[in-house]
Amino acid sequence: MQKKVISEAVVKRLPKYYRAVKNLSDQGINKISSNALAEMLGITASQVRQDFCNFGGFGQQGYGYDVAKLKQELATIMGLDHDYNVVIVGAGNIGRALGGYQGFEKYGFKVRAMFDSNPVIDNVGGIKVYNMSQFESYVKDNTVDMAVIATPKAAAQSVADRIIGSGIKSIWNFAPIDLEVPDYVSIENISMSESLLVLSYRTKNNV
Amino acid sequence: MQKKVISEAVVKRLPKYYRAVKNLSDQGINKISSNALAEMLGITASQVRQDFCNFGGFGQQGYGYDVAKLKQELATIMGLDHDYNVVIVGAGNIGRALGGYQGFEKYGFKVRAMFDSNPVIDNVGGIKVYNMSQFESYVKDNTVDMAVIATPKAAAQSVADRIIGSGIKSIWNFAPIDLEVPDYVSIENISMSESLLVLSYRTKNNV
Repeated sequence: MQKKVISEAVVKRLPKYYRAVKNLSDQGINKISSNALAEMLGITASQVRQDFCNFGGFGQQGYGYDVAKLKQELATIMGLDHDYNVVIVGAGNIGRALGGYQGFEKYGFKVRAMFDSNPVIDNVGGIKVYNMSQFESYVKDNTVDMAVIATPKAAAQSVADRIIGSGIKSIWNFAPIDLEVPDYVSIENISMSESLLVLSYRTKNNV
Repeated sequence: MQKKVISEAVVKRLPKYYRAVKNLSDQGINKISSNALAEMLGITASQVRQDFCNFGGFGQQGYGYDVAKLKQELATIMGLDHDYNVVIVGAGNIGRALGGYQGFEKYGFKVRAMFDSNPVIDNVGGIKVYNMSQFESYVKDNTVDMAVIATPKAAAQSVADRIIGSGIKSIWNFAPIDLEVPDYVSIENISMSESLLVLSYRTKNNV
């Protein structure tokens, strides 16, 4: 069977669907129509049905979606049906904030270790900070599914190269640079500076 | 003259243009063709010309763009031609990391104060942390152009309401919630959890 390519726009809506459905589930709501779900996301019902078609539909039109089932199917699609072992490279301000980021635990991401080229602290909220010189041996001895880059811009590409060289195939990048990675590596960037500049534009132009 | 509406996609590319042009300028490069600029951003040259058309074009086809002029025009469009006074609400992990975020200073955003409902520290890198009860009086006595929300999700909407009530019209939101704000307020969200879930999807599906 050929692998279906899901568009970037659909992928970016998946977390919004998941968050909405999780909220419904937390409130004890069992059924949701595509109309109501669409309204929660600020999109059209036809867009919801079209998006879900990519994954087999999730239920019958006219009956609404079963919230528990939808939540579970979305979780499986997004890989939230198992835990990930995560390491953070960079124990500066951003790295330390990420060490305490509750979203990790919530979605099954377990931060196992932090690394820094010049560690000035021993641990971040109980997560041990290793010297970056120990990175490869740590990854060799432990299962690591994902690495977070929280280094300055200048170090980010060489850190990415070491992460990839060690066999890790998933990178969450907080450094303000577009990293070059092979196709088989999954990467997602959080660009704080781009977001700040977009806000600056909106503020200046009153939009 | 009627105000031209710039599409969201173009607005989101502005920081990328700015970053590329700033890099060229830092390297002492004076001229850049739309082709070369397009390649830096991973888009087509015709997209670059079309984007720039929204702002009057920035130069003559066939001659390339003047880097210094382009940088200055982009800075003006994005409101980087003046400083902003910024306050951060929430002095937890994220707030503290933001207090030390160098991007602020780089683009003329001056973090003047932090607020917390229960301050456990006096200052973050020299930025004073006030009790949230002092928020309105601080904003009344000082010019504040922008507020950053770095609170837990549960507090974010009520904090947003207080920010808007105090007269601030620009919000950078780090809480994982879609805030309801009036049309005249500029808002930009950084959703760490959505980004993490997108990465989770990519990792699971090898894309």
